[in-house]
Amino acid sequence: MEDLTERVRMAVAQQPFMTTLGVTLARAAPGEVDLELPFDERLTQQHGFLHAGAVAAVLDSACGYAAWSAADGEVDVLTVEYKINLLEPAVGERVLCQGRVVRSGGRLTVCRGEAYADGKLVAASTTTMAVRAR
Amino acid sequence: MEDLTERVRMAVAQQPFMTTLGVTLARAAPGEVDLELPFDERLTQQHGFLHAGAVAAVLDSACGYAAWSAADGEVDVLTVEYKINLLEPAVGERVLCQGRVVRSGGRLTVCRGEAYADGKLVAASTTTMAVRAR
Amino acid sequence: MEDLTERVRMAVAQQPFMTTLGVTLARAAPGEVDLELPFDERLTQQHGFLHAGAVAAVLDSACGYAAWSAADGEVDVLTVEYKINLLEPAVGERVLCQGRVVRSGGRLTVCRGEAYADGKLVAASTTTMAVRAR
Amino acid sequence: MEDLTERVRMAVAQQPFMTTLGVTLARAAPGEVDLELPFDERLTQQHGFLHAGAVAAVLDSACGYAAWSAADGEVDVLTVEYKINLLEPAVGERVLCQGRVVRSGGRLTVCRGEAYADGKLVAASTTTMAVRAR
Repeated sequence: MEDLTERVRMAVAQQPFMTTLGVTLARAAPGEVDLELPFDERLTQQHGFLHAGAVAAVLDSACGYAAWSAADGEVDVLTVEYKINLLEPAVGERVLCQGRVVRSGGRLTVCRGEAYADGKLVAASTTTMAVRAR
Repeated sequence: MEDLTERVRMAVAQQPFMTTLGVTLARAAPGEVDLELPFDERLTQQHGFLHAGAVAAVLDSACGYAAWSAADGEVDVLTVEYKINLLEPAVGERVLCQGRVVRSGGRLTVCRGEAYADGKLVAASTTTMAVRAR
Repeated sequence: MEDLTERVRMAVAQQPFMTTLGVTLARAAPGEVDLELPFDERLTQQHGFLHAGAVAAVLDSACGYAAWSAADGEVDVLTVEYKINLLEPAVGERVLCQGRVVRSGGRLTVCRGEAYADGKLVAASTTTMAVRAR
Repeated sequence: MEDLTERVRMAVAQQPFMTTLGVTLARAAPGEVDLELPFDERLTQQHGFLHAGAVAAVLDSACGYAAWSAADGEVDVLTVEYKINLLEPAVGERVLCQGRVVRSGGRLTVCRGEAYADGKLVAASTTTMAVRAR
């Protein structure tokens, strides 16, 4: 598991947008990846909450890494589409974005995502990923 | 129309996340708003393309401003949910994100969005917005 | 709970489309409703599996009744939108469609749905409902 | 075009669920298919309108046939996922369900759908299809 954690951590570090957002890896297991998005005034909308687009981007990435961590061998993962419901304003010091594989198989992997702001569910997503051998 | 353009421009400027992404207003009309996202290495994913999450965030915002520009009087617009299909990698110098109101009425407004990278369609979205009088 | 079960059963019976599909109530609790769709040759697609549209319609209804069962007082529930991923062909004697409230509050309720064909997960959905006092 | 029309008409006739719903082909061109769903009391919900699930099923099928009509050679088309916004109650004598290919290429085809009840836009969808050579 340590090896997987390290590999996901390096993959996150290779995405400049994740660095720009200040995202760090919280947990990785096969098919399950949690990313943490700390509050940052630069990422807010007009009411001072974290912008939904920032939360969605991190949730999409958590799902992408979850799909990647569940795949056999070296693969590339591309988001085909996702849908997100924003349930509550993302208020708090940090948002935990959890990606979970629902079905992995063949060329497409489907994930569910949930985002929690200081422990409260604020967003729920579903993502379809294309998985290709490198 | 100049007045509307100016109002949307100010609204964009009031969202720190839009400033962080480098977004500018390209066009505004009632129910139609185009935002421009210039290429920026800080917003890329591991292959050097603009991260889908950045494109989605700007497309969501374009739809939000479109809903806002179509409303009567002073309103707040909140994204209830959105779904986005990523059709092609966002390659190019700039991505034009177009939000269009499909149905405006009562408390919910539905928009369609399309993102073009150097003129090529790269993403298509649908967004549901809650519109509330201030 | 018996009373709720009876009320949901009557509500299902009042939807002619549910009767046309042969749907019956399997279980009801506040915020949780399971509907059962038996295999019927009339509901199949070209490969002899249950048509995705039939499964989606029942899953949407299960979510609608779940939202209804979680509401206070007499309400009408209308589907604003839903998204469904079809994970596997719906093969089997019956499909169990489970609707679960994820967030209930104010005017909008969000549900997650899962459909199981003979115990296997075949579809996953998310639904936004508008809830209005009668 | 006559040949394509005839091929789509036969494909619709091979889906028992489309026959159960009373669906007929209104128009077919490469990447564009319109299906017609006539009002039928058996397909209604509790308020006497056409059930959203029936409209969604026909819209999904229109998109599937649009994807099929745009493909080269003999292919099977499977719905990966779809999202639908229900904009207005489906009131009227017939609902015209239009499927249009937005992007066709490789293994995935994305379509937009629009449903009109007696000429009024009542639903808007986006569908992802997997296209496989037979």
